[in-house]
Amino acid sequence: MRVTSFPLMTLRDAPSEAEIISHKLLLQGGYIRRVSSGIYAYMPLMLKVIEKISTIIDKELIKIGCSKLLLPQLHPGELWEKSGRWEGYTAGEGIMFNLKDRHERSYGLAPTHEEVITNIASEILKSYKQLPVCYYQIQTKFRDEIRPRFGLMRGREFIMKDGYSFHSSENDLKIFYKKMEKSYENIFKNCGLETIGVDADSGAIGGAASKEFMVTAYAGEDSILYTKSGSYAANIEKAVSIPKESKPIINFNKTLIETPNQKAIEDICKFNNIDATQIVKVILYLGEFEDNTKVPIAACIRGDQNINEIKMFNLLNEIYDSNLINLSIIDNQSLNNDNLIDLPIGYLGPDISDEIINKNSQWEKQWIRIIDYSASKLKSFISGANQVNFHKYFKSWKYLDDTFITSDIRNAQEGDFVSSEKKETLIEKKGIEIGHIFQLGQKYSEKLNAKFSSRNGGLENLWMGCYGIGVTRLAQAAIEQNHDNEGICWPIQIAPFNVVLIPTNFKDPLQKNLSEEIYMEFKKNNIDVLLDDRDERAGVKFKDADLIGIPFRIIIGRDSINNQVELVSRLNKNKLKVSMNNILESFINESKLMYN
Amino acid sequence: MRVTSFPLMTLRDAPSEAEIISHKLLLQGGYIRRVSSGIYAYMPLMLKVIEKISTIIDKELIKIGCSKLLLPQLHPGELWEKSGRWEGYTAGEGIMFNLKDRHERSYGLAPTHEEVITNIASEILKSYKQLPVCYYQIQTKFRDEIRPRFGLMRGREFIMKDGYSFHSSENDLKIFYKKMEKSYENIFKNCGLETIGVDADSGAIGGAASKEFMVTAYAGEDSILYTKSGSYAANIEKAVSIPKESKPIINFNKTLIETPNQKAIEDICKFNNIDATQIVKVILYLGEFEDNTKVPIAACIRGDQNINEIKMFNLLNEIYDSNLINLSIIDNQSLNNDNLIDLPIGYLGPDISDEIINKNSQWEKQWIRIIDYSASKLKSFISGANQVNFHKYFKSWKYLDDTFITSDIRNAQEGDFVSSEKKETLIEKKGIEIGHIFQLGQKYSEKLNAKFSSRNGGLENLWMGCYGIGVTRLAQAAIEQNHDNEGICWPIQIAPFNVVLIPTNFKDPLQKNLSEEIYMEFKKNNIDVLLDDRDERAGVKFKDADLIGIPFRIIIGRDSINNQVELVSRLNKNKLKVSMNNILESFINESKLMYN
Repeated sequence: MRVTSFPLMTLRDAPSEAEIISHKLLLQGGYIRRVSSGIYAYMPLMLKVIEKISTIIDKELIKIGCSKLLLPQLHPGELWEKSGRWEGYTAGEGIMFNLKDRHERSYGLAPTHEEVITNIASEILKSYKQLPVCYYQIQTKFRDEIRPRFGLMRGREFIMKDGYSFHSSENDLKIFYKKMEKSYENIFKNCGLETIGVDADSGAIGGAASKEFMVTAYAGEDSILYTKSGSYAANIEKAVSIPKESKPIINFNKTLIETPNQKAIEDICKFNNIDATQIVKVILYLGEFEDNTKVPIAACIRGDQNINEIKMFNLLNEIYDSNLINLSIIDNQSLNNDNLIDLPIGYLGPDISDEIINKNSQWEKQWIRIIDYSASKLKSFISGANQVNFHKYFKSWKYLDDTFITSDIRNAQEGDFVSSEKKETLIEKKGIEIGHIFQLGQKYSEKLNAKFSSRNGGLENLWMGCYGIGVTRLAQAAIEQNHDNEGICWPIQIAPFNVVLIPTNFKDPLQKNLSEEIYMEFKKNNIDVLLDDRDERAGVKFKDADLIGIPFRIIIGRDSINNQVELVSRLNKNKLKVSMNNILESFINESKLMYN
Repeated sequence: MRVTSFPLMTLRDAPSEAEIISHKLLLQGGYIRRVSSGIYAYMPLMLKVIEKISTIIDKELIKIGCSKLLLPQLHPGELWEKSGRWEGYTAGEGIMFNLKDRHERSYGLAPTHEEVITNIASEILKSYKQLPVCYYQIQTKFRDEIRPRFGLMRGREFIMKDGYSFHSSENDLKIFYKKMEKSYENIFKNCGLETIGVDADSGAIGGAASKEFMVTAYAGEDSILYTKSGSYAANIEKAVSIPKESKPIINFNKTLIETPNQKAIEDICKFNNIDATQIVKVILYLGEFEDNTKVPIAACIRGDQNINEIKMFNLLNEIYDSNLINLSIIDNQSLNNDNLIDLPIGYLGPDISDEIINKNSQWEKQWIRIIDYSASKLKSFISGANQVNFHKYFKSWKYLDDTFITSDIRNAQEGDFVSSEKKETLIEKKGIEIGHIFQLGQKYSEKLNAKFSSRNGGLENLWMGCYGIGVTRLAQAAIEQNHDNEGICWPIQIAPFNVVLIPTNFKDPLQKNLSEEIYMEFKKNNIDVLLDDRDERAGVKFKDADLIGIPFRIIIGRDSINNQVELVSRLNKNKLKVSMNNILESFINESKLMYN
């Protein structure tokens, strides 16, 4: 391509709207333009990156026998009602844009395609002989995000690769899931990215097992906990660990402890010579279910630990038949709403009375009491006395009634042991999720009645897996991982061009001819080359090349007269003077190094 | 690809829902699956066809300097309000699906992208030095069709190539438009299609000139009128012609003619010895404008001719400042609505009185009288007497008042002369529109304030063109033009595979080995080959190959033992016995013939 017919459209100034560097560079480099909140146009440079990523994905997925197709973006509401997700995705969380057509029929703009593909599978996959099958697509998806931000990172319109596999047994699903895991590792490696695969929560998609692939980067929204040896890696949403030992309580003789204005853990510790590991803190939540049940919850955890609300969400979903829609902290506002009669916040204990729930409230009239293992393992502990300005010494849990549910509702954290052997500890890093694979099991096939006749003749629900990659997100994460003060430093595998030719003065006939010659030779050798044939100062061209991040530049300057050009690496600014006759070979050799 | 990992999913029986053959074959061949009314999944075979068409388009457009990008599908309502199209596309005709996001902001699902691209152009194209520029994309579009039908032909979700060019002068636009016209001809030829380019109405898109590209096919929804010599071709919407001569009226002496129950032209002719060319028929319309004005219209045309409502629509839009939203025939219903006092339908004359418009009606109180040239050229004529059971002899138009608008509001038809020289006559054929190019002029740049600084330093509105190809429509039109009783006969250029290898018995080790050998050799030579490696009867494989329409098949059968295979053409079933050593060469030679 030539810059005169492939305009760059870089901006002189960094746009103020961008919060993170990759977003800023995408805008300033002319890769994207904002059309509305969370909605961007992919300009020609960006589309080239997207196409390169897509080609890498295609190659790996076809290798493991996947078939590419394209499913519709407008999904009939009935299909999502069958799977039980319509309410939650529209009225509930409202993540799915939705509309009525001219005949008042409801449609959703697809954020994901389990319903549509399972419905098609139910029509075409009739026998175990046709299995396994994996379909995938690369397509624009929609999500009505509450707070769209970070450019393509959390947009409302974005490109995903989503794939869905169908199997005749759980075992076959597991085998294919492993293949896909390997395939994902290849894809990200072939994109030139450093990623970590981590155990993850399955979220609204559901299913048995799932793994996320994270690009490590400072601006990541996710926290990854992993061991140095690589033996363990998980998203904080899901990570389990052994917290450090608690200090035993010795010779404590008071039962009631006066703790005036000591609501914070650190104050109690300071004024009473107590360690945070000796305290059980109690946090109250309200769980709202799809069937309108409202359940008050008392969550108990060791004083130095933090509640993991996703673990708690999943636990409640397991316990109850109805779906949990919302989980929120109970604060003093609940008193004003007449749901609670009294709420000594800062002084709550695990034995908080059911009596404080107002008889006229819409809430259930009993606290669901959940104790995290970190608290349940304490022999004795200090906690609130359910009375303002007082805490209490609990000699043991056994003096409390036994309606407690004991579970893991704790955030793992850096420094925790990874297992009870206490050999390895966890390290924390920020990451950007760019891929997610799930073993869905039979969740969707059961709801959408997608059955096949098995080897023994009976009808069974199809076993399913699903596999996503955020294509536009990956592109931006690549920038977050690969940039410097001058701009983007694309991995060569997904750069819009591999090399840019910069004649310092295109009006000079010698430079022009030399540039054209190199351009034609590179094109003939299928090298993705950009010729900056603008009538601009060399400085402008250099600045643009740095900003948009082409991995190599060839400068055709004053040494043209000696048939010499300069090959410069974007990443480390290494310069090579090369004779015109060797430039193709030199470029190929230099660029090869970047592919590993 | 191998059929075992690229499943065909053909259906045994033709689906009953399909009205036309191409739709039937797409469903039966497993190319598409219906998800909702007018909404289809493109299965792997279909996606391959779409990708081949896209590649052909990309190649030609890049040749003339176009840049590919990808614009969003969700468009903010404000942008369409600026161009003045929001009302018409949503509340009006309602062609645009639309929704409100979680913040109650309006968005449309894009059927076309003039607004978005012009808005971007207004931000990045600042100087004549950056012009001309042409951006295009290949993308899913949405239309809430009143009656979706014919599969991908008139769907609600479909794939389009849409391009938009920006110029510093009308002349430059015209030059580029010509280039694009040539480019379109190449694209369709390279897709292996027979098309006709015709003058067309610009419709809701607007602009100065436009041309449609039609695939000629029996099931086409459009009528094309053209001359044998190719000197003229137009869509009936737009075609102009000279109708055959009228018979002069000689020695007619009555003024009032009693015509009891003779409402139809043919009855009047029969009972009164009159020729249809001697009659002026009057049809009443109501035009409803965006500013809520409702205008009653009396359209006069020669008795043997038919009104072209699109021409009339455009004429009214030209005359009035406000946009015409709807044009409907006035019938007796209007009497019940108290808009008209009396309506002698079947006996209407050009001098129909304004008095019959009810003073209390919301309508304008004067008829807009439009005479088609076919009627205005009549010296004397018969028409209704505005009195039931009576017609009148009009000695000349000059006795009527002169508020008539004279214009072309007539449908051209087969047999008409193409010009006043009366040399060539028109032929009619049905066609399927697959492409449309427009000279938009400054319509959108003016409304969206997209200005550039011109060579002389002043600010001017950008000149624009826009260029569409219905990609999925083209695919289906290709089938409509290329099929037989057994199934699809794809032009090789856009066939999902160029050749299918059919071992008649894949369990036979000899056949299996030979098949694998040919498969690997063809793949190595970049030939798009499908290997039917199923453990199925040969008959099933042949039937599938015919149905899905792969241009060539190579049968590896009993002659394998002599190292011989059979090369068969899908189109004419020609068979060649070929030795294994020559099969690649033979295939290349035979398939080459199809590329011309």
